[in-house]
Amino acid sequence: MIVVMKPGSNPKQVEHVVKLVNEMGLKEQVIVGTERTVVAVLGNDRFKDKQRLELADGVDKVVPILASYKMASSEVKNDRTTIPLGGTLGGTVGGVKIPVIAGPCSVESKQQILEIAHAVKEAGAVALRGGAFKPRTSPYAFQGLAEEGLKYLAEAREQTGLAIVTEVMSIDQIPAVVEYADVLQLGARNMQNYNLLAKIGQTRKPVLLKRGLSATLEEFLLAAEYILAGGNTQVMLCERGIRTFETDYVRNTLPLAIVPELHKRSHLPVVVDPSHGTGKSHLVPDMCRASIAAGADALILEVHGDPEHALTDGAQSLNLKQFSEVMKSIKRVAAAVDREV
Amino acid sequence: MIVVMKPGSNPKQVEHVVKLVNEMGLKEQVIVGTERTVVAVLGNDRFKDKQRLELADGVDKVVPILASYKMASSEVKNDRTTIPLGGTLGGTVGGVKIPVIAGPCSVESKQQILEIAHAVKEAGAVALRGGAFKPRTSPYAFQGLAEEGLKYLAEAREQTGLAIVTEVMSIDQIPAVVEYADVLQLGARNMQNYNLLAKIGQTRKPVLLKRGLSATLEEFLLAAEYILAGGNTQVMLCERGIRTFETDYVRNTLPLAIVPELHKRSHLPVVVDPSHGTGKSHLVPDMCRASIAAGADALILEVHGDPEHALTDGAQSLNLKQFSEVMKSIKRVAAAVDREV
Amino acid sequence: MIVVMKPGSNPKQVEHVVKLVNEMGLKEQVIVGTERTVVAVLGNDRFKDKQRLELADGVDKVVPILASYKMASSEVKNDRTTIPLGGTLGGTVGGVKIPVIAGPCSVESKQQILEIAHAVKEAGAVALRGGAFKPRTSPYAFQGLAEEGLKYLAEAREQTGLAIVTEVMSIDQIPAVVEYADVLQLGARNMQNYNLLAKIGQTRKPVLLKRGLSATLEEFLLAAEYILAGGNTQVMLCERGIRTFETDYVRNTLPLAIVPELHKRSHLPVVVDPSHGTGKSHLVPDMCRASIAAGADALILEVHGDPEHALTDGAQSLNLKQFSEVMKSIKRVAAAVDREV
Amino acid sequence: MIVVMKPGSNPKQVEHVVKLVNEMGLKEQVIVGTERTVVAVLGNDRFKDKQRLELADGVDKVVPILASYKMASSEVKNDRTTIPLGGTLGGTVGGVKIPVIAGPCSVESKQQILEIAHAVKEAGAVALRGGAFKPRTSPYAFQGLAEEGLKYLAEAREQTGLAIVTEVMSIDQIPAVVEYADVLQLGARNMQNYNLLAKIGQTRKPVLLKRGLSATLEEFLLAAEYILAGGNTQVMLCERGIRTFETDYVRNTLPLAIVPELHKRSHLPVVVDPSHGTGKSHLVPDMCRASIAAGADALILEVHGDPEHALTDGAQSLNLKQFSEVMKSIKRVAAAVDREV
Repeated sequence: MIVVMKPGSNPKQVEHVVKLVNEMGLKEQVIVGTERTVVAVLGNDRFKDKQRLELADGVDKVVPILASYKMASSEVKNDRTTIPLGGTLGGTVGGVKIPVIAGPCSVESKQQILEIAHAVKEAGAVALRGGAFKPRTSPYAFQGLAEEGLKYLAEAREQTGLAIVTEVMSIDQIPAVVEYADVLQLGARNMQNYNLLAKIGQTRKPVLLKRGLSATLEEFLLAAEYILAGGNTQVMLCERGIRTFETDYVRNTLPLAIVPELHKRSHLPVVVDPSHGTGKSHLVPDMCRASIAAGADALILEVHGDPEHALTDGAQSLNLKQFSEVMKSIKRVAAAVDREV
Repeated sequence: MIVVMKPGSNPKQVEHVVKLVNEMGLKEQVIVGTERTVVAVLGNDRFKDKQRLELADGVDKVVPILASYKMASSEVKNDRTTIPLGGTLGGTVGGVKIPVIAGPCSVESKQQILEIAHAVKEAGAVALRGGAFKPRTSPYAFQGLAEEGLKYLAEAREQTGLAIVTEVMSIDQIPAVVEYADVLQLGARNMQNYNLLAKIGQTRKPVLLKRGLSATLEEFLLAAEYILAGGNTQVMLCERGIRTFETDYVRNTLPLAIVPELHKRSHLPVVVDPSHGTGKSHLVPDMCRASIAAGADALILEVHGDPEHALTDGAQSLNLKQFSEVMKSIKRVAAAVDREV
Repeated sequence: MIVVMKPGSNPKQVEHVVKLVNEMGLKEQVIVGTERTVVAVLGNDRFKDKQRLELADGVDKVVPILASYKMASSEVKNDRTTIPLGGTLGGTVGGVKIPVIAGPCSVESKQQILEIAHAVKEAGAVALRGGAFKPRTSPYAFQGLAEEGLKYLAEAREQTGLAIVTEVMSIDQIPAVVEYADVLQLGARNMQNYNLLAKIGQTRKPVLLKRGLSATLEEFLLAAEYILAGGNTQVMLCERGIRTFETDYVRNTLPLAIVPELHKRSHLPVVVDPSHGTGKSHLVPDMCRASIAAGADALILEVHGDPEHALTDGAQSLNLKQFSEVMKSIKRVAAAVDREV
Repeated sequence: MIVVMKPGSNPKQVEHVVKLVNEMGLKEQVIVGTERTVVAVLGNDRFKDKQRLELADGVDKVVPILASYKMASSEVKNDRTTIPLGGTLGGTVGGVKIPVIAGPCSVESKQQILEIAHAVKEAGAVALRGGAFKPRTSPYAFQGLAEEGLKYLAEAREQTGLAIVTEVMSIDQIPAVVEYADVLQLGARNMQNYNLLAKIGQTRKPVLLKRGLSATLEEFLLAAEYILAGGNTQVMLCERGIRTFETDYVRNTLPLAIVPELHKRSHLPVVVDPSHGTGKSHLVPDMCRASIAAGADALILEVHGDPEHALTDGAQSLNLKQFSEVMKSIKRVAAAVDREV
């Protein structure tokens, strides 16, 4: 980090800063410029709480230099991590092939999930998404079928070979989800639920970690770091749209430039969710194509047999015909960027 | 809700919308305007998932009319709810008197918390805050003293009479926190941790519910609704700053207009946290005064005996002298708006 | 619009609202629901100031139904407007072919602009961008070569056939820019400079209208409406990134879903600017590909022969080799979405 | 500035950075840390375009240290600048006394403005606001009475002694506004209209500079710097709300912490506009009180005799009775923070 002193700071103040730096076990180099004095801190301050140095007399600001994550960083590992999704269809995230994960927001009934599973497999998906435990903004809304839903998902895998991706919302749900699912999804609203992250880090299932609605890129990678620090190395980073002043034509803003930036800073593969990323089904096909062109390693999409009657998230779900058309078009875009779907 | 049809929509499309509305158990009134046809939906659609109507052919958009929360709404209760904080000093949130909750971000040691407790009581605080379980952005940062920290807090109450406000981060921590604390704090990053909200709704302890960093006002009140729906009526709404493009001089933007708006829409009392609301200790005193002037029912503040050496959140903590000065000045502002501190 | 009354509003209040509506020359239909009374306003209220109805006693809120723009709307014209850029290379925005506009942020010297012009033409661009009048955040920064810069641009057109796109910042610059340029660029910071919009509406040159950093989609289309209302029908809508809490890895967030949404709501063609849209040259190539995949009708890009020594915006400029590679790759993506570059 | 090299950067890359730094006329100090090498740049780089250094091989990022404004900075002048508003009532912005500027959004007629002028003076205002030239989002909305409106304002000053504050939207309006008004208001949408800023810098009238909807604090002070650099030292900084994801209960978010921060960084006085800052008249009184408590040097408020029939901005206007009550209550808050209204 760099500690920038105020104009007119005095040597005693600089000395005090140096003392605080040394107390942290770090060394310093003081640079007296024509306009400002700065204290450059030498050594690994990655995990130090630096902001409190701002309080010292004569300090103007503290500028961090090192990122605060380590295991998620491309500094420790150059090659992109590849993560097999499970199931029998061979989907892997992080390679040349771009797997598509599709399915309804919620598992609503056995028939519903089986029908959708067969249809999305037919269209080319290799994994099935579907929520058994549902985080709902309203306490009065449908909360999911819980373990029953997990069983239906497992049956869908049995019948189709699709890998199962489903959300785990709390620590007590981990055993059941680990039993039935192939990939644990960690939802956007739980991205900073640190107890849950730590526990999921102790499982050995692949994790689809969704970015929080207003998480910075650094916070996103630190959430991944929690899981990696627990020993679980199979983390996929999923961009699902952020909250901005754009609330009129979309539910979220999909910031696709994060795809190449995450590839630069981290070795973890990047999944994009254009369904939540827009919240509007008519915008999803174009955003699927754009995500592939931006370098996404996988897509996760909401697909429903009858979106008008979906119990949750109908407005952003593709119907089966739309999904099938999207699959055809993204194959072409993938080829144009030397990838395959 | 109002379903707005596209220009040029046909009667068959309108009929289909009416059918969908009726399937929801609701009645309709079709209004054919010169430019647009709209379908006004009659009846309590508060808890219906309306967005999927957007998918019906010929529909342009769906405009909700009713708020989706009910028990938190001022429609069901006019008087502001008053919530005693506990301890022996008689602090109550929601009346003419404005209690101040103060203390360190984290409980760091017995000595630290006792010293701060005595000092903040001396200065006029009626409750002590302090984290035993700490949600930390980095897995490598200090994670709190856990149950040991709770015991120190209880001892501080014993010695001072201050009520204890402390965060509960996950379901398994509830029993311990309920045992030692007077008020359960639910952190901003957990505002949409629905399982935790529901479980906290089953306790009978007052809850300090912090607004999520990018939660809308409606989502905030729906989070409160989760707790109320569980039977716990003692919910305080705490504004602690939101995430905006302002990342240069503050860590968060403190949107004080939410105070009067929450008072208008809800009967629940409103607490403001200027420490997190700015992230910078030099801005806290002015924002304390502004919060009181805006109508806050309580303040919660980070105070530390030695902020330069605080294990967490030093940059936004007041030292004891600063806190004591803030207390004096807010007494005067409170009097100017016919309140008391 | 729909005027929603508060719960418990009385007939006299409703009557007063009806009176206000009638004063606007509009008709009403009163709908008494079980929970709320609403007043649906019939007739063209597109250009009425509705918000003041919110002040009437008993009114909860006013919900607009009609968009406030008209000439920019796809309701008045179905086919996408096509706009020839000028020059002798035949670039047209809004058709199957996707023209690329490239060049430096600023015209710095005759030699600089001529070299870049030849190079970008070589690589496949059909228009040259370059600022002669520069809007600069700092009064101490390079402000452009003014009319001299325009002459160099004209000479570049002479030598290459490239159309010239350049910014006009104020009314007094219009005659000079109209004389030398083929397309008038209206910058993001001037998107709501209404006097300038109105005057540009009186010219008959194509306009590249950049979206303001925090303009809503409706404000963006209303800015276009200002130009259209003046009789100038050749308006291109240019997305160039918005301001969000993402300030760490990008200068702006590029919200590509606006491309299909603008195509839905308007007949005007849509240009994307990935250079300003990210502010970081290493993110530009992926965002070029994503923009094409999202349906962009043209790209505008900053390209410089020696970005390390560019007088302005070096950090987001591609060098000539990078630009040439981008051109190759976007040709392939365009083909994958049935377009051509 | 500090140039941070990537991990693994080599001496040749560092050498190249040093060469670029020297080309800028600046000196360097290279610091080789255990994790990173950084190049600290010595000398006044305040007005240099640093971002292009990011493009040099081996550079990770460039961190600015000096603010890019100078004349607006508290580094050059400690005391708060005081600015007399004009008129005969003696209002001055920047001292202990807090003047209130009040009036309608638009001048609508002679009678309207005179009535309001007398009423706001009666209630304690010392200056009258009112738009003659109106920036309107829609080309079809009322655009103001232009010079006729200015004359009515001047007559209001004649009759009441109130100073006149009115917006100038474009360079050609400057002579007329300078002739009739006491204070030139520069609107939020023009905060980065640099040509206009520069021309206003050449006048010798006080300027009320409104912050742009998404301007950073630094951009805001740089806009002031444009005016100061022209020789006009009488600039008031006016916070009027920013654009955030909060679009449901307010039109803008009012970030009051900017008041003490501007006081820290600049010597210019700070005005707050709670009318635009919320967009909702029912929130204005509490935000007036909060603004005063936060340290505002003046308030500017929209007041209308009949807001339901205001031609513009009715929804955020106080009526005369509400304004008079606000004045009484802010006097008390001002006294509580050792100020006067």
